[in-house]
Amino acid sequence: MLRPGFAFRVEARDGTARAGRLETPHGSVATPAFLPVATYGAVRGIAPPELAGAGAQMLLANTYHLHERPGEDAVAALGGLHGFTGWRGPWLTDSGGFQVTSLSDLLEIDEQGVTFRSPVDGRRRFLSPERAVAVQEALGSDVAMVLDECRPLPEPEVDGHARARAAADRTLRWAERSLRAHTRPDQALFGIVQGGGSEALRRASARATAGLGFDGHAHGGLGLGEDRGRRAELVAAVHDELPEEAPRYLMGLGRPLDLLDGVAAGIDLFDCVLPTRNGRHGLLFTRAGLVRIRNARFRADPSPPDPACACTTCRQHSRGYLRHLLHVNEALGARLASLHNLHFTLRLLEEAREAVAAGRFDALRRELAGVLETPAE
Amino acid sequence: MLRPGFAFRVEARDGTARAGRLETPHGSVATPAFLPVATYGAVRGIAPPELAGAGAQMLLANTYHLHERPGEDAVAALGGLHGFTGWRGPWLTDSGGFQVTSLSDLLEIDEQGVTFRSPVDGRRRFLSPERAVAVQEALGSDVAMVLDECRPLPEPEVDGHARARAAADRTLRWAERSLRAHTRPDQALFGIVQGGGSEALRRASARATAGLGFDGHAHGGLGLGEDRGRRAELVAAVHDELPEEAPRYLMGLGRPLDLLDGVAAGIDLFDCVLPTRNGRHGLLFTRAGLVRIRNARFRADPSPPDPACACTTCRQHSRGYLRHLLHVNEALGARLASLHNLHFTLRLLEEAREAVAAGRFDALRRELAGVLETPAE
Repeated sequence: MLRPGFAFRVEARDGTARAGRLETPHGSVATPAFLPVATYGAVRGIAPPELAGAGAQMLLANTYHLHERPGEDAVAALGGLHGFTGWRGPWLTDSGGFQVTSLSDLLEIDEQGVTFRSPVDGRRRFLSPERAVAVQEALGSDVAMVLDECRPLPEPEVDGHARARAAADRTLRWAERSLRAHTRPDQALFGIVQGGGSEALRRASARATAGLGFDGHAHGGLGLGEDRGRRAELVAAVHDELPEEAPRYLMGLGRPLDLLDGVAAGIDLFDCVLPTRNGRHGLLFTRAGLVRIRNARFRADPSPPDPACACTTCRQHSRGYLRHLLHVNEALGARLASLHNLHFTLRLLEEAREAVAAGRFDALRRELAGVLETPAE
Repeated sequence: MLRPGFAFRVEARDGTARAGRLETPHGSVATPAFLPVATYGAVRGIAPPELAGAGAQMLLANTYHLHERPGEDAVAALGGLHGFTGWRGPWLTDSGGFQVTSLSDLLEIDEQGVTFRSPVDGRRRFLSPERAVAVQEALGSDVAMVLDECRPLPEPEVDGHARARAAADRTLRWAERSLRAHTRPDQALFGIVQGGGSEALRRASARATAGLGFDGHAHGGLGLGEDRGRRAELVAAVHDELPEEAPRYLMGLGRPLDLLDGVAAGIDLFDCVLPTRNGRHGLLFTRAGLVRIRNARFRADPSPPDPACACTTCRQHSRGYLRHLLHVNEALGARLASLHNLHFTLRLLEEAREAVAAGRFDALRRELAGVLETPAE
């Protein structure tokens, strides 16, 4: 990264896992790092100081949602994402492409871009690589993403490979247009590797994308149906084609085991709504396994939600109280449970960083693999 | 109040307004005081330290809701309201009677008590004065309330006066039973004045209730339809009949002007869901009047929601951001707006206390009367 204010250094390696540091104009991020998702410029019910307290270093905001409401001009007028939200640390924005294809009534994808019907007001909208860059420049994130053509996995049997190839090729042409459109010197731009479930296509996409000179690279279109082992192979294969000195970002995956798989393969950045979404639904990550805190057996349980956890929720509240709040749908319950899951996830990445630096990442991963996603007790 | 750990002193008077101090086993409350409502043991989405930061001294919990879920035995097992919720300051609980008559399918009210169908599980439930006391003793509040028969205002034209008289008489008999049933020495018990819209009935109810020797007295059945002037008369008339040295509590009223009216008449305690409910709906109390923050004109407004306010929301966030969060239904919006309205309300009572002590309460009331409930600008 040669932009002023940006740098990325790999500081330690353990096999293909790596620990490093991403410098941005709004602060430094120790990697591998997990980015909590602030869809509308806020992490559901949680204020910036609490995110910092839980160990968050960098947040992700959804370009599409903020473009719809309040509009990037309003965000820009209120100081960009940093001033608008009060989170003064680094921000990453997605391109909006994933939301356009998953949430809206998709009308057409052609070489120019994507035409869709807004779920907010029912009107026709058009998103092109150039517009995605322009919106993100107005939002003022530290890291912007190119618009990609994202396809579901597994591909249909008929023409699946051809469609995946066409989408990867188009993503590459859009990547070139995005680079030409990008003007903000204080914002990094990351390319996205596509290619569906084909290792060959993804390698080719990575090689070509890397050749364009992005500040970092992301794995696109994963976590949409392929199994965990296959995903690990697709990620690992692509890393041979990407420059070592640029950050690698695995988009949208955030289960604890996914994070450990990603770190093992050399991923530096993650984002996912899972910690907060699971929290709202009463599914807690703990060091003893998954806890469904709404279960009636926790009704009068005075112990902390996760006895091994040092988060505000676990230090101040009992399982019985948290269970009650979620049971009666009191907003404080979703907030406390989300905060715990975020703290757990952020702490997991912190431990991964420490383990990579100490050359014992594999041991950590083996130790945790057995418990993280099985029910506690 | 002769209970150990309790005391109430009037420390200053200004006309019929008064400022004082209520001592409880869990701390001291400067009066007049506003009690935020923690329906299910939490003030919608707001954590105890934030309530303390906004100036809250004492909270109210709804006996009926906590009886249904999680049940008073669970609350007791988790340390009573103080341990259960983490709010270690004083608590007041209502009797549950108002929720039973307003929320449930009321089956029968007779001399023994109230039979109703639970909206939670559809089963028949029975609430008597003795059970209302027992539930509140298990919850462990600092101040408990007697079960009263609460009737809507205005009374029906036919038999209205007779019905109001019968309800006031029954409330009095229930009050005696409540006193006999009450055993917890570390919990105060307040009687409730009834009598509908009749000054004569309310005076008689107050005189008889005061004669029973409660620790404090509440105005019941107000704020249910009578106009503001009439309510002030009904409150003032009753105060002649109540002992000066016991706290007076106006239940369920919390608009800024209602609070100032109440203080003027000599009320010491208030509770209301209005600050938080209005906050969730985007209606902000400010020193320039009411602000409908969801209005489109605030879309890119960088000023604080209330420039005269020192709350966390107003110090850290813009009108534009708060408007956006409420507009997209992001939970942080309801939380920030509720916190502002609570801070505003709590600060208003603090100013009222200072004004009473300085002998300028009337001036404060006149100064604020013109702006508090008119739209800003």
